[in-house]
Amino acid sequence: MKLFEVENTCSQTDARAGTITTPHGSIPTPVFMPLATQGSVKSLSPEDIQNLEAKILLGNTYHLYLRPGLEVIRESGGLHRFMAWEGPILTDSGGFQVFSLGHLRKINDEGAVFRSHIDGSEHLLTPELAIEIQETLGADIIMAFDECAPADAKPDVFREAMNRTHRWAERCLAKHQRTDQALFGIVQGGFSMELRKQSVEELTSMDFPGYAIGGLSVGERKDLMYPVTKETAALLPASKPRYLMGVGSPEDLVECVSYGIDMFDCALPTRIARNGALFTREGRANLRNSRFKNQMEPIDPNCDCYTCRTFSAAYLHHLFKCEELLGYRLATIHNLSFILKLMDRMRQAIIEGTFPQFKEDFLAGYQTVDEETRVTQKAKWITAQRKR
Amino acid sequence: MKLFEVENTCSQTDARAGTITTPHGSIPTPVFMPLATQGSVKSLSPEDIQNLEAKILLGNTYHLYLRPGLEVIRESGGLHRFMAWEGPILTDSGGFQVFSLGHLRKINDEGAVFRSHIDGSEHLLTPELAIEIQETLGADIIMAFDECAPADAKPDVFREAMNRTHRWAERCLAKHQRTDQALFGIVQGGFSMELRKQSVEELTSMDFPGYAIGGLSVGERKDLMYPVTKETAALLPASKPRYLMGVGSPEDLVECVSYGIDMFDCALPTRIARNGALFTREGRANLRNSRFKNQMEPIDPNCDCYTCRTFSAAYLHHLFKCEELLGYRLATIHNLSFILKLMDRMRQAIIEGTFPQFKEDFLAGYQTVDEETRVTQKAKWITAQRKR
Repeated sequence: MKLFEVENTCSQTDARAGTITTPHGSIPTPVFMPLATQGSVKSLSPEDIQNLEAKILLGNTYHLYLRPGLEVIRESGGLHRFMAWEGPILTDSGGFQVFSLGHLRKINDEGAVFRSHIDGSEHLLTPELAIEIQETLGADIIMAFDECAPADAKPDVFREAMNRTHRWAERCLAKHQRTDQALFGIVQGGFSMELRKQSVEELTSMDFPGYAIGGLSVGERKDLMYPVTKETAALLPASKPRYLMGVGSPEDLVECVSYGIDMFDCALPTRIARNGALFTREGRANLRNSRFKNQMEPIDPNCDCYTCRTFSAAYLHHLFKCEELLGYRLATIHNLSFILKLMDRMRQAIIEGTFPQFKEDFLAGYQTVDEETRVTQKAKWITAQRKR
Repeated sequence: MKLFEVENTCSQTDARAGTITTPHGSIPTPVFMPLATQGSVKSLSPEDIQNLEAKILLGNTYHLYLRPGLEVIRESGGLHRFMAWEGPILTDSGGFQVFSLGHLRKINDEGAVFRSHIDGSEHLLTPELAIEIQETLGADIIMAFDECAPADAKPDVFREAMNRTHRWAERCLAKHQRTDQALFGIVQGGFSMELRKQSVEELTSMDFPGYAIGGLSVGERKDLMYPVTKETAALLPASKPRYLMGVGSPEDLVECVSYGIDMFDCALPTRIARNGALFTREGRANLRNSRFKNQMEPIDPNCDCYTCRTFSAAYLHHLFKCEELLGYRLATIHNLSFILKLMDRMRQAIIEGTFPQFKEDFLAGYQTVDEETRVTQKAKWITAQRKR
């Protein structure tokens, strides 16, 4: 069983269409992986996810290790059966979550000591344990344990984190036993192409079946993220899948597919849905806005998702004003449908040789977050980085 | 089109099986009506409700009048289309909700002046307006505007509320124009059979197509509710549907079906579901209980609802511990499935002539809330009544 096959490439960009094959099914790429952080895509049932035709979900090692814990997952026969999802799953290594805990964790070469956000209990997560947990969860694709330095770190910190990531990658490879799982390496190195190049060289010498680019989930800092993604992707072997971690706004997906990225995950589409922000081809629409109070048409008349086929914008507006639980689900269905169909359309355009035009048209028509919001978000982002 | 037909009666109890026919479909009785208070059965989509084979939903005039308001409902083409539910709907008159507002409302013969729980705005709800709202909502069965005295009121208060209810019932009949809606009268009179008898006489002389028994939604005070329900039901015309308002625990449903009640509604099954309390044939099980942490079987192995067919109790326990939105939906599906199937089983038993045995077996096997909980609930109930 070959993990990955590139089927089509683009003549003007680095975009490509391919297929990832796993024991739980095959995945056409480029692909977006909805988050099932705690074993549930927030507000959706497995049936909903099947109806959306999502091909692969992402589970979080950090969360699932703490709750329900490995014993329950083991007794359940693995994560697939626990959450009643029969399709492919990818699990992260827990690294990103642990490093996001900030003052609650300490890192040394052995691993990361951290305190649970649930009960404050102390845990040591090592590369070996990260693999053991992921073998128990039983995902189809699993990730090496990496150190993800904060985006505003000094060059030395980035270098140190990168080197540790490489040492940990070797330990992960040595520990990993299950032959029905593909273990991916994670390229680190911050925003320095010198470090990124070094990281690619070291990791490719270890010959992972696939590679992720970590440390670039930096929200609105597209000026930082785009060039590093583009150049790093170009350094990675063309025959193996490339996964850009934590990136998934519509404009980022279109941009980064053109760099040759095959896999994405991101909390954004589902998280903003629960805040009432819905994707349309023109940009984001906020359901709480009073302009929807009397809109008898669906939120996006071009959309054929369950939500838009069934309900008016006025009804969705009402559900959000009343904080009815159904609203969160209907908004999540719409946003995931939007993103998954965007991936399908990109794949189709790559196959048909029209991707460069598709990209240009989409980005011209899609209003990314407005100026005022972007300024606020940037300020918030900088404050958040300073606190880390 | 005949509204109601009794098809089977029971030789030892007053239970009966029948059919209510409405413009949006027919309803086998006895029937339980899930609450769609604000135009949504909390956490469920219309598809979920169809899968549960619920036959009729209940919408609340008070809530829908305040939000989204009549203009939106009118533009939507009525409540059915607004909420994308094609089956029958019953709306209450808003009376019960307004009277529950306590100090926020004042009542006189004209109607009830109340302040919105949303924005504090002042409104006057009269019998005429209650009918106008319900004609706009467009439910298949609508209710007369009544005054529901608090359960701990003095005899004079009950009498006054009852008399006002009768005067208002006449105004509702005079106002009501739509011929595709059945307008039901509501019997009041508290816990006095003298008053209840008088109320039945006055209302039946007005010849409503169906009758509700109001003022008996008193939680654990079964000692008060059961005898009044039994005797009042027996006074109501056998040829017309009888609706016991706000009652719907499993034991109350079985008991009151034996008194000849045909229709029920209650927040209990859906509300306790969102608290993690699930019905089983042995009684309520609380999903948060640690005994479910490792239970790989479904919460009720005898149940064939989507939740029990698909997920272990351990998974549901996990969702509730994590406060995942999916948990509320899965629990709601199970509890409504339990209640709706209980109604089916009772109907079947009535048709087959085995209802008395069914009732005996069910009540023997079903553990109502345990002693400690009951004492706490009773104390809470008394405190709540005192505050009114």
